[in-house]
Amino acid sequence: MPLATFKTSFRVTWADTDAAQVVHYSNYFKFFERAEEEFYRHLGFSFTDLHARGLWFPRVEAFCQYKKPARFGDLLEVEITIGELKEKSIRFEFNIFNKEEATLLAAGYIVALAADKQTGKATEIPEEIAKKLRPFCK
Amino acid sequence: MPLATFKTSFRVTWADTDAAQVVHYSNYFKFFERAEEEFYRHLGFSFTDLHARGLWFPRVEAFCQYKKPARFGDLLEVEITIGELKEKSIRFEFNIFNKEEATLLAAGYIVALAADKQTGKATEIPEEIAKKLRPFCK
Amino acid sequence: MPLATFKTSFRVTWADTDAAQVVHYSNYFKFFERAEEEFYRHLGFSFTDLHARGLWFPRVEAFCQYKKPARFGDLLEVEITIGELKEKSIRFEFNIFNKEEATLLAAGYIVALAADKQTGKATEIPEEIAKKLRPFCK
Amino acid sequence: MPLATFKTSFRVTWADTDAAQVVHYSNYFKFFERAEEEFYRHLGFSFTDLHARGLWFPRVEAFCQYKKPARFGDLLEVEITIGELKEKSIRFEFNIFNKEEATLLAAGYIVALAADKQTGKATEIPEEIAKKLRPFCK
Repeated sequence: MPLATFKTSFRVTWADTDAAQVVHYSNYFKFFERAEEEFYRHLGFSFTDLHARGLWFPRVEAFCQYKKPARFGDLLEVEITIGELKEKSIRFEFNIFNKEEATLLAAGYIVALAADKQTGKATEIPEEIAKKLRPFCK
Repeated sequence: MPLATFKTSFRVTWADTDAAQVVHYSNYFKFFERAEEEFYRHLGFSFTDLHARGLWFPRVEAFCQYKKPARFGDLLEVEITIGELKEKSIRFEFNIFNKEEATLLAAGYIVALAADKQTGKATEIPEEIAKKLRPFCK
Repeated sequence: MPLATFKTSFRVTWADTDAAQVVHYSNYFKFFERAEEEFYRHLGFSFTDLHARGLWFPRVEAFCQYKKPARFGDLLEVEITIGELKEKSIRFEFNIFNKEEATLLAAGYIVALAADKQTGKATEIPEEIAKKLRPFCK
Repeated sequence: MPLATFKTSFRVTWADTDAAQVVHYSNYFKFFERAEEEFYRHLGFSFTDLHARGLWFPRVEAFCQYKKPARFGDLLEVEITIGELKEKSIRFEFNIFNKEEATLLAAGYIVALAADKQTGKATEIPEEIAKKLRPFCK
């Protein structure tokens, strides 16, 4: 059990949906990333700061399991924990809930690699960042 | 080895990219689906026909591994095989290549469930469809 | 001058950007619509309610002028007024600001037609809705 | 009448649609741009070449009129002409047809400014490019 989880909420917009009148399956990956961005902001740094330090976090893997459809107007809650924090990579795990109905809609993860913006090579996650991520580790 | 594979090509558009100047990771899932649509068309039926028959193919799982970035203007080739064809579900496997450089950019899969459009319940894939899919099975 | 304006704020996500490292021009139209959705919610009804009443609001025109780029992480404020409220159509006008810098990034409008969901024909905006929109008219 | 028009075709994908089961209004702007990219390619240069020369073409205005909905699987034809070619800007005009039904679905334009990538300032369109654009001017 992680010591802490991070949660953020937002609504499904019309543009998120497709002709099946549910959220398009690719958009859950945008929801994951949006939550991740809020999480970094919550920890006190932004992607922008990291980029300015020459750090980049390309995704090397992404997975999602779809349990129930999200529909236009639904209030989503995305919960983040860290499945694995390695020297050079982070595995973020996400659960997306319909907040009003308290049902799990989707669960997935992404693996982000810390990379040097110039060379593109994998690099160590700075301790200053790793330290803030640890309480969220499983 | 499957008896047959299906391949389709298209270019990365500006709108597919993000501020890292590469294709946004969620868009590979759009590329998978676009190839799947072309594949159905190649087999002689479209999603539209299937929908008209009361069939729906919601995704229940999606995965992608990112190996090299795709960039604006790249000519992509998406190759489809079928990893598993069950009574009520299909696992489509995708490789995305940079066609001009012949390098593998991403590999992934989606699992689509055959579902009744009215009830939402899993249903058997009609033999008429399954028959056309079999040559593409691993 | 309208009696009232509606404002809503949200951040630019990574997925909103393109390889020019600014928000892709098509996404401003998503921002317009997202603000419109929040506006309806603020007025006490949602698109979903309207749809349930057999009403649909297809866009017949959309325009945007781009003044300064929005970038990843920017906090946007979208301001809505109503440029014209006709019997069967609404012209929503939008200003998008960088909230922290108080600069205007983009300005535009959309014209939405009230249409019968079944027939697709233009239909009168119910007085119950029009009444709530009037204070926002220029 | 322009001496020449450029046309390109592609199909509506599932991801282009929204819960009204038609193409989302913002996606017509992606279709415009995709046609513009093909047009540049047809003329023998790509955005990538232009960027490499330090040129950028930010959009300063975009407009679309929606006449009939495009639906999943529709084969679209986008026709480009140039409404106005100024020293530092280009107004591209677009008609989007349902190719199989030969009906006009949408018409619009974008105004692109030639800008120096470093300074962001408006700059002259190189004669080598302008020359190739002129036959498409109204």
